[in-house]
Amino acid sequence: MKFTITRSIFSKALNDVSRAISTKTTIPILTGLKLDLTEQGLVLTGSNADISIEATLDVNSEQNDLQIESTGSIVLQAKFFGDIVRNLPEKTMTLEVKDGFQTVITSGASEFNINGLDANNYPHLPEIDAEDALTVPASVLQQLINQTVIAVSNQESRPILTGVHLVIDSGKLIAVATDSHRLAQRTLALPEAGDAHYDVIIPGKSLTELSRTLTDDIQNVEIRFAENQVLFIAGRNAFYSRLLEGNYPDTSRLIPTTSSTTAQFTAPVLLASIQRASLMSHESSNNVVRLALDPASQTATLFGNSPDVGNVEEQLTFTSLAGEALDISFNPDYMKDALQGVGPATIELAFTAPLRPFTMVPTEDRDQFIQLITPVRTFS
Amino acid sequence: MKFTITRSIFSKALNDVSRAISTKTTIPILTGLKLDLTEQGLVLTGSNADISIEATLDVNSEQNDLQIESTGSIVLQAKFFGDIVRNLPEKTMTLEVKDGFQTVITSGASEFNINGLDANNYPHLPEIDAEDALTVPASVLQQLINQTVIAVSNQESRPILTGVHLVIDSGKLIAVATDSHRLAQRTLALPEAGDAHYDVIIPGKSLTELSRTLTDDIQNVEIRFAENQVLFIAGRNAFYSRLLEGNYPDTSRLIPTTSSTTAQFTAPVLLASIQRASLMSHESSNNVVRLALDPASQTATLFGNSPDVGNVEEQLTFTSLAGEALDISFNPDYMKDALQGVGPATIELAFTAPLRPFTMVPTEDRDQFIQLITPVRTFS
Repeated sequence: MKFTITRSIFSKALNDVSRAISTKTTIPILTGLKLDLTEQGLVLTGSNADISIEATLDVNSEQNDLQIESTGSIVLQAKFFGDIVRNLPEKTMTLEVKDGFQTVITSGASEFNINGLDANNYPHLPEIDAEDALTVPASVLQQLINQTVIAVSNQESRPILTGVHLVIDSGKLIAVATDSHRLAQRTLALPEAGDAHYDVIIPGKSLTELSRTLTDDIQNVEIRFAENQVLFIAGRNAFYSRLLEGNYPDTSRLIPTTSSTTAQFTAPVLLASIQRASLMSHESSNNVVRLALDPASQTATLFGNSPDVGNVEEQLTFTSLAGEALDISFNPDYMKDALQGVGPATIELAFTAPLRPFTMVPTEDRDQFIQLITPVRTFS
Repeated sequence: MKFTITRSIFSKALNDVSRAISTKTTIPILTGLKLDLTEQGLVLTGSNADISIEATLDVNSEQNDLQIESTGSIVLQAKFFGDIVRNLPEKTMTLEVKDGFQTVITSGASEFNINGLDANNYPHLPEIDAEDALTVPASVLQQLINQTVIAVSNQESRPILTGVHLVIDSGKLIAVATDSHRLAQRTLALPEAGDAHYDVIIPGKSLTELSRTLTDDIQNVEIRFAENQVLFIAGRNAFYSRLLEGNYPDTSRLIPTTSSTTAQFTAPVLLASIQRASLMSHESSNNVVRLALDPASQTATLFGNSPDVGNVEEQLTFTSLAGEALDISFNPDYMKDALQGVGPATIELAFTAPLRPFTMVPTEDRDQFIQLITPVRTFS
């Protein structure tokens, strides 16, 4: 195996696949990065138990400037190899595998000799049919991920809740996540899905990593499903994730359909107020802020309190306030996450009772994105 | 005590003095920030056992927009208070101290009530005469600090070596630091010092913190010395540091005056090569690279080796190479620090023997900045 390549391009592909490589893996060869050189191009692979990333550098791409002298495969220590490539002096670099997996990397007057590993011992990635592929704009997928992973549980006690539940049915995609204290549900029209039906649970961590690889230059992402794997193809990268096994709880009945009090706010303005109130609640043993809504006097007041440190009180600016008076306490961090997911929009909070979950929707897009927050019972 | 002020200015001053405040102090009141309001303005103070920083916001400054209603003093929890100020909604903020050190902070519709502490219990800063003040351009002081603190020891076993030795004599300033493996000495003509004589040792950590407060808008720094304190006045900030007590070792006789081999390099080019070689030495139990200089054949070769991982060999590009052939091994991290201190200049390395310290000087400024590195004995 011997090739010469544009160093910056190779380094970038190496960074991409390194996202999947962990130094903490129990399978030693997975701390390495696999290189496969065929007449078609160079494929870099990184993997851990949950996700695998494959980057393909095409022999026909002019900017890759890939010169193949002989094909083959090798596995190299990922972190160390990445450091070497980043620090080489010239624009191009040459990599040659000699006897016994000894690998020589040269660039200008610099020559590295490092020990490689037999690529035959590297686990194979699953093969996933292109048969039922869906295509989604990268920006839409990224938004969908960001808006749902916030509600994913990070408690391994109920592993199923660490995933995002994705259902594709009747030309619609519904993504739901909940940690049982809050819920985020994003709906997307997907006419090209036709009568395809999928019901899968993708680990939240996989989606977060996927979202980080979706750079601005990527237009569309192709999604393919297999038995226990999902594959996202974005630009020259293929991103594999395992699926979570089990039944996701039925969340549709959790979302209230009526309300007795509603309030509308500009999301960033409310976010800043919540942020201030949380400065106090974070100093307290129970991280709770209190919201008092009084439609009769048209006032909304937010309270944060810490017995040791002090308290804060703020008159909130709202765009509308209607229904019955209400006093409700909740975790301000859930509210912050929810508001950050909405962006600069106007949102509506809809309440039924002080101890019942309340909803947050963008007023312009009520059906596409709905979030639920469970209040906290306080004795004060 | 009650005043109104431009929030951004107050927040910046608060950040400045917070550099001196540690949450780990054994004196509880020092986790606080002191505010002193007089008819002249507002003084903020932060302190730990080693350094104290005072910022003065003048009542006559238009941008401060300081409105004084009543004077007084208070101590507030620094981190918490800083978070509040940063998150307030409006351009201005009002702070009022009520009975029992209760402090009310208001901005727009937001009102914080927090508990303060009696400012009478806050330790007093030393008073330092303006009599023998020196003035140094801020950029020169910053360079001098950066070029010497790299060689300061971080081992508390010889506390005196954790400081920078500063001698002002005969209109000249000499700053020296050494951790006994390497040494950095910076000389500065200081004609305005006249026949003033000072010999002090300033903790390296204090100088590093001072250097961080020297922002681009600061032209000159006034330096005042007292018995066991030094005071730097930079813009609206006064920076106090304790001095280290004891006798600094005589370093002047350590610097060799003759050499048998010299080599000149462009500092950033040599730095990149050292960086590459250190990738290997860092993977080895003894962090050493080897430099082989052969003036006869006009070659300079750098070697890095790790028994487990591999090795690197590089032909170095030099601008001149003269004297006897030499093989020398050294810690590449010391060389990296030394080269980074020099910047983009051309440097000369001068060697006497494989196991004797060698010097590095910028070729344009040989007397002003000299660094010394002790080689490592290897058995290979």
